[in-house]
Amino acid sequence: MKESTQNLENLDIQKMKSNKKRFLTGIKPTGEVHIGNYFGAIKPCIEQSQDKDNEVILMCVDWHGLTNKNEIFRPGELSHPLIALYLALGFNINDNSIVLQSNFPQIQENSWYLSCVTASGMLERSHAYKDALANGKTPTAGLLFYPALMSSDILTFDSHFVPVGKDQAQHLEYASDMAQLFNNAVKKNVFNIPKAIIQETPTLVGTDGERKMSKSYDNVIPIFSTKKELERKVKEIKTDSKGLDDPKDPNTCTIFQIFKSFASPQAISYMEERLKRGIGYGYGHAKKDFIDEHEKVFGAYREKYEYYLNDINAVRKLLRPGYERAHSYAEQVTKRAREALNLKNYW
Amino acid sequence: MKESTQNLENLDIQKMKSNKKRFLTGIKPTGEVHIGNYFGAIKPCIEQSQDKDNEVILMCVDWHGLTNKNEIFRPGELSHPLIALYLALGFNINDNSIVLQSNFPQIQENSWYLSCVTASGMLERSHAYKDALANGKTPTAGLLFYPALMSSDILTFDSHFVPVGKDQAQHLEYASDMAQLFNNAVKKNVFNIPKAIIQETPTLVGTDGERKMSKSYDNVIPIFSTKKELERKVKEIKTDSKGLDDPKDPNTCTIFQIFKSFASPQAISYMEERLKRGIGYGYGHAKKDFIDEHEKVFGAYREKYEYYLNDINAVRKLLRPGYERAHSYAEQVTKRAREALNLKNYW
Repeated sequence: MKESTQNLENLDIQKMKSNKKRFLTGIKPTGEVHIGNYFGAIKPCIEQSQDKDNEVILMCVDWHGLTNKNEIFRPGELSHPLIALYLALGFNINDNSIVLQSNFPQIQENSWYLSCVTASGMLERSHAYKDALANGKTPTAGLLFYPALMSSDILTFDSHFVPVGKDQAQHLEYASDMAQLFNNAVKKNVFNIPKAIIQETPTLVGTDGERKMSKSYDNVIPIFSTKKELERKVKEIKTDSKGLDDPKDPNTCTIFQIFKSFASPQAISYMEERLKRGIGYGYGHAKKDFIDEHEKVFGAYREKYEYYLNDINAVRKLLRPGYERAHSYAEQVTKRAREALNLKNYW
Repeated sequence: MKESTQNLENLDIQKMKSNKKRFLTGIKPTGEVHIGNYFGAIKPCIEQSQDKDNEVILMCVDWHGLTNKNEIFRPGELSHPLIALYLALGFNINDNSIVLQSNFPQIQENSWYLSCVTASGMLERSHAYKDALANGKTPTAGLLFYPALMSSDILTFDSHFVPVGKDQAQHLEYASDMAQLFNNAVKKNVFNIPKAIIQETPTLVGTDGERKMSKSYDNVIPIFSTKKELERKVKEIKTDSKGLDDPKDPNTCTIFQIFKSFASPQAISYMEERLKRGIGYGYGHAKKDFIDEHEKVFGAYREKYEYYLNDINAVRKLLRPGYERAHSYAEQVTKRAREALNLKNYW
């Protein structure tokens, strides 16, 4: 990190000299967002952005979304809605950044430098690549190259910490290994070695009451939707055959399990109590309370979401200071890499 | 090409609407340049740049040079000398461009788009990758990814023609295939399909009189060197045992074979005649004439070469108009790719 503090002439010295912990979190624009995502990833990230000790760079990784050739238009369609969603739900954009990966060409450049010090065989060991092969798919060259680009996402912004789920520990190993390989090859500390923060990703059960909530199981509750659609999805939540007045166990009640992932503490206690007592409180009542609380929690954000969704210029303006900060980090790191390789510049 | 003519608002419309044939030629900064290179690649390229019907983009491909991890500092060391050499030897920089690959991040970006429509298996079939494996080397991820970056070199500048040696036909196949795959995936003509111009690359025999002149055989005659070094290298040129007054066959005389690759027509006729006649003209005389003519031909350029070599700012200034042209091509092509994918921009 010595070089990085030497090159800070221009921008935001205050911010960068601060002792904030810099986190990088990637979000992939590949599907509509549901309550399972909210609970597992969005809420923790938003809370992290509200902690003054942190500087969060939230990166919408549209380039990664392109690695699936069959859904090559999805990142273009879904990146803006995803960014609008984080903003609407309270991501603290004043002290942190939301950036779109494909607006930072430095990431591709550093990805190349990393790939030139990494044995090709390392790429073939990535989970994503092996999964594609195991599932009989024809992986793209982009998917094969994914570990290098992903490592560069992290390294290009001098990230200190990267929150990852247990199943993503490999990502950080790639980033650390490649950083080290490059630093060794050029005999300079160009890339900062990031630390993983292994997070227990909370998972949420789906409306089928059996599997993890996931778009691919068609068992999700949306965050923003028409009331009609929400009612239809809530109706689908599996219940057992207990009658109106039977006491019900909240721990095995799927309605309650999903409910407590987003409801207010008061609303949670209320439903928990009623279910346990049973009398006069059937699953129909619980589903009605579910819909009301959903409207109460997310309805308030929906207007904001639609505003951001429809006004890309307003979002651009909000994102600007974070973009400038992120850009200055990326420029410094890329400059260090180029200088270590003694690459020329005729511009 | 329809989109490309629509997006020409800003720069150099005159030049771009012209009917010039746009050529892209890559040169790799990985070794000192010798007369074999001059004869096989440099001279034809310089002649091409002097033809008013052509627009040549000569790209010093420093990023490709990095794919060999063991020589990772070579591109940084050798790119400027190589550019200085082409300028000194008469490349027509007024109507053409010399660019350094690593100054164009658009190449890496488009390389990513190409890789996302290409099956990973295609990469493994590249000659360079297979050669590395066959030679027991551990290829880098960069070398594996080389075909995508190389295709992007060509496609990012809307090149019409790419001169290639017979052994490089695969390069153009990659570029055409990937361009087509991308255009099909997005259902738009984003990338222009380039045409190969297969060239018989003239090869020159080395000082050993047996093998092709090549750094790796240590049988080269330098272009610019001290007189002492040149004399040493010329002394090494193999000759047979014919005496001073014996008639000598120019076709089997290595001195003459190398000599005629750079000497003036008059000098060539002179030596040819003397060798055939023999009397009073031995190999020592031929070697002396060789050294004199070498000094006459290349000595005139040496001063220019050293000037460019030592004044990067002067070179920067010379390269500037070509850089602007090349930059405008790269921006247009990348914009077409991004728009076809509907990628957002928050900058």
